[in-house]
Amino acid sequence: MPSEFELIARYLARPEDRMASDSAGVALGSGDDCALLLPAPGQQLAVSVDTSVVDVHFPGGAPPEAVGHRCLAVALSDLAAMGARARWCVMALTLPEADEAWLAGFADGFHALCDACGVVLVGGDVTRGPLSIAVTVHGEVPPGEALKRDGGRAGDLVAVSGPLGGGLGGLHAWRSGKRDLTDPLLTAYLLPQPRLAAGLALRGLAHCAIDISDGLLADLGHLCAASGVGAELDMERLPLAEGLVAALGSDGARQAALTGGDDYELLFSLPATALERAERCLSECGLEVTVIGRLRESPGIGGVDISDLPTGWQHFSGMPS
Amino acid sequence: MPSEFELIARYLARPEDRMASDSAGVALGSGDDCALLLPAPGQQLAVSVDTSVVDVHFPGGAPPEAVGHRCLAVALSDLAAMGARARWCVMALTLPEADEAWLAGFADGFHALCDACGVVLVGGDVTRGPLSIAVTVHGEVPPGEALKRDGGRAGDLVAVSGPLGGGLGGLHAWRSGKRDLTDPLLTAYLLPQPRLAAGLALRGLAHCAIDISDGLLADLGHLCAASGVGAELDMERLPLAEGLVAALGSDGARQAALTGGDDYELLFSLPATALERAERCLSECGLEVTVIGRLRESPGIGGVDISDLPTGWQHFSGMPS
Repeated sequence: MPSEFELIARYLARPEDRMASDSAGVALGSGDDCALLLPAPGQQLAVSVDTSVVDVHFPGGAPPEAVGHRCLAVALSDLAAMGARARWCVMALTLPEADEAWLAGFADGFHALCDACGVVLVGGDVTRGPLSIAVTVHGEVPPGEALKRDGGRAGDLVAVSGPLGGGLGGLHAWRSGKRDLTDPLLTAYLLPQPRLAAGLALRGLAHCAIDISDGLLADLGHLCAASGVGAELDMERLPLAEGLVAALGSDGARQAALTGGDDYELLFSLPATALERAERCLSECGLEVTVIGRLRESPGIGGVDISDLPTGWQHFSGMPS
Repeated sequence: MPSEFELIARYLARPEDRMASDSAGVALGSGDDCALLLPAPGQQLAVSVDTSVVDVHFPGGAPPEAVGHRCLAVALSDLAAMGARARWCVMALTLPEADEAWLAGFADGFHALCDACGVVLVGGDVTRGPLSIAVTVHGEVPPGEALKRDGGRAGDLVAVSGPLGGGLGGLHAWRSGKRDLTDPLLTAYLLPQPRLAAGLALRGLAHCAIDISDGLLADLGHLCAASGVGAELDMERLPLAEGLVAALGSDGARQAALTGGDDYELLFSLPATALERAERCLSECGLEVTVIGRLRESPGIGGVDISDLPTGWQHFSGMPS
């Protein structure tokens, strides 16, 4: 196995990232003990980490480009949900062996999303072990403008930035042998798009936001718990991912949208008076706002039948401990 | 297995960390999509990540307190080597199962080192998979004062902040069945101390610095390559860890000190005129400066016999590619 340094140098630390300059907020890129960054004066620094483990978060046979894209996308999604501008990331990559073809594809997928989102990879650690990638992302947000979870108010509309259920639908598609990544469900599962532009656009409009990684009900439960409110869902308005009903049937599609997770759309609340502006702003990002319910004073989440839930669903309380 | 949130809430995100305030540079601790930090105006942000994998970086049977300490210590060591003041960290913890006793001990070890170093844990991600911990650390350093690798100059003294070989000596001790963590070699291996105070003290004195994680020769090679110089070592002056000769014999001890790695002392170069001040400053940190050689113009590392190296040692070039 080539040494960690050779691996990093060859596939991860691109010359352009190593030479990233003050304009990218980078005083020193990867290659030393630490990267040295230049946070913009007066901004808060938003930080989050997400780990992607093979056969837990993505299938072992997934194309390496998709793995590289996905492990960064799910981390950036947290910056989007905070309304932060994405700036830098570091990667902890654990690999069982030095499969150079795999690593090259992985790096391509990762770097392509970095470039699309204006993010610079400023450091990393490559170790030997079972395949897993932890990505720590850094963004910036003006004080007081972050989209926290605790700002929801009774009466707010509850809305999402796109269709739901595609994450689980794509997992089913993968398991049934589908491998064409242009299939909408596989795209949703393996190549999710962090809604960074939407997060920026919702600053000053949304009262609270979260990304849908654990499933609509679980994440709405987190928003409600943090905000001290409940919610009433309108099941008829849930936007379902393209092809989801055909793949899972209508009950299965509804269940996937409610509890499947891995959708990486934004879930947010906003006053009715802000809806038109939010629709216009998200439309400029190529996204459609769908109102799916309202926040209410009484706790818990209403409007959901027990028959809408998968057998054995345990965590439906709306008030996680 | 309890959900990720319950695990984080119960063992990792302490109430005092969640409530960490502006004075700790924390506008919002763990529990939302991102932490929100308040970098000090005019400082550079130093960022580094280190992954610790079971049976690669620490033995599977190591006490959980030691694992918690060690995974943070090795990450903080990079801030020390940069001369940065440690401020915040995030943790990506991957666990095969929810062993609560293990997790409680792990958290104790991690938090104790956080407190000792003035570091706040501001976020994390807990996932299921083979045991591994990636810790991203954040520190601050005034512009122009970071101890980079590329500042070494021919004629500089080469020095270390403490004894060498303890990391590998401790691994041998562990494998031979020793379990008493007060044994100096086991302490060096499982409970290394990040030399943060030494890193701060060496600002303005040392021309370059690195922490000894890969072994003295490899890390000196990195310093030399970055600085465009070579080095001459004085083998007689290498400070050997307590108990190392007794454990490994004198050849084995010398090899461990040169190539063993995992020592986490600082390796730095400085002009002879700065030595007395460096000795005084490190003495105030309870450490002893040992001069072990000099930087020179001609590339490569001299003063080391091939017989000083373990059989099969490949990477001794002083000029890694």
